[in-house]
Amino acid sequence: MTATRERLVETARDLFLVQGYNATGVAQILKASGANSGSLYHYFPTKEDLLLAVLEWYRDNIYDGLLKPVYERIDDPIERIFGILDGYRQLVTMLEFEYGCPIGNLALELSNSHPTARSLIRENFENWVDAVGECIEAASDRLPEATDPRALALFTLTVMEGAVMLAKTYRSLEPFDAAVSQIREHYDRLLAAGSDWSAPKTP
Amino acid sequence: MTATRERLVETARDLFLVQGYNATGVAQILKASGANSGSLYHYFPTKEDLLLAVLEWYRDNIYDGLLKPVYERIDDPIERIFGILDGYRQLVTMLEFEYGCPIGNLALELSNSHPTARSLIRENFENWVDAVGECIEAASDRLPEATDPRALALFTLTVMEGAVMLAKTYRSLEPFDAAVSQIREHYDRLLAAGSDWSAPKTP
Repeated sequence: MTATRERLVETARDLFLVQGYNATGVAQILKASGANSGSLYHYFPTKEDLLLAVLEWYRDNIYDGLLKPVYERIDDPIERIFGILDGYRQLVTMLEFEYGCPIGNLALELSNSHPTARSLIRENFENWVDAVGECIEAASDRLPEATDPRALALFTLTVMEGAVMLAKTYRSLEPFDAAVSQIREHYDRLLAAGSDWSAPKTP
Repeated sequence: MTATRERLVETARDLFLVQGYNATGVAQILKASGANSGSLYHYFPTKEDLLLAVLEWYRDNIYDGLLKPVYERIDDPIERIFGILDGYRQLVTMLEFEYGCPIGNLALELSNSHPTARSLIRENFENWVDAVGECIEAASDRLPEATDPRALALFTLTVMEGAVMLAKTYRSLEPFDAAVSQIREHYDRLLAAGSDWSAPKTP
């Protein structure tokens, strides 16, 4: 990847995150990246091509950007999940709640109108679910036998996306922290049920 | 409210729901509503004025549009909550996943750029949380004493918003149903803990 292409992708990534895709103009991307329009149209004939490159950037950087910093710091697989959620808490508070989950923003803005982007958004979500699902599997001996790692991971993604949306709207961490505290209770109850050999595994 | 104003609001409401706010042009609203531009600019000098009227419409119709049809059908307060969630499941499947939560879509698209709209979006969310919180309070004798109705209602909204977002992206009910099944388990465990007088209320 050439430096110019990389700069265009990173500039578009940051502008889409704060402003959304439709509200970001090509002229603004050119100005903020310092690239000329010839380079832009060489690498990205349409704005949608740039969007797809941004979604590929997120897909290719999930480990280095999201998971690795948490995994290096935390060993316990369940705590790694809460470490990932805490990363979004930090993202939400940066720039006074203007950030959020970059993929979630684009998911709601573009799912109906951009089918190719939607596939890449889904691929990003699936990679997240796979990573959290692996954490859950690594703790499977502490969870009830009936626990479905994929369903629980998908639920964790669901809660994170909803929590980030509400925190952005409320300009407050209250809904985010309320959601994490509830899903912590959910995991705690699963861990308690998993470790309690004398009790039935489900209510 | 005159018929023309009402028609403009309802047309904008439906277009924003499917396409988003930024992607919907004033010309399209005029064409779909059959109103003339003089009427539009008389009632709504800017497109943002129309957005605010749409958000007020949702705020003023939460009971008749969302709650009443569920409450008339279901008496049990906890089941009413799942009845509300089921309404979103129906909304998501209409028109092959092009619909979703109208407020959630606008929340992510506009929270950063439209502070006045953001206040109204928050008001819509708060009314939803209040309604679900009242259902939880009505069932408080069956829940653990430590249950915080507002926190649990906010969590339920969080899960619903995340679930609708993922269903739209996946073009599938799988993530929605997985999320509802997990939050059903969460409520079930709370109800089991609330009815179990011999066990500690929290794990």
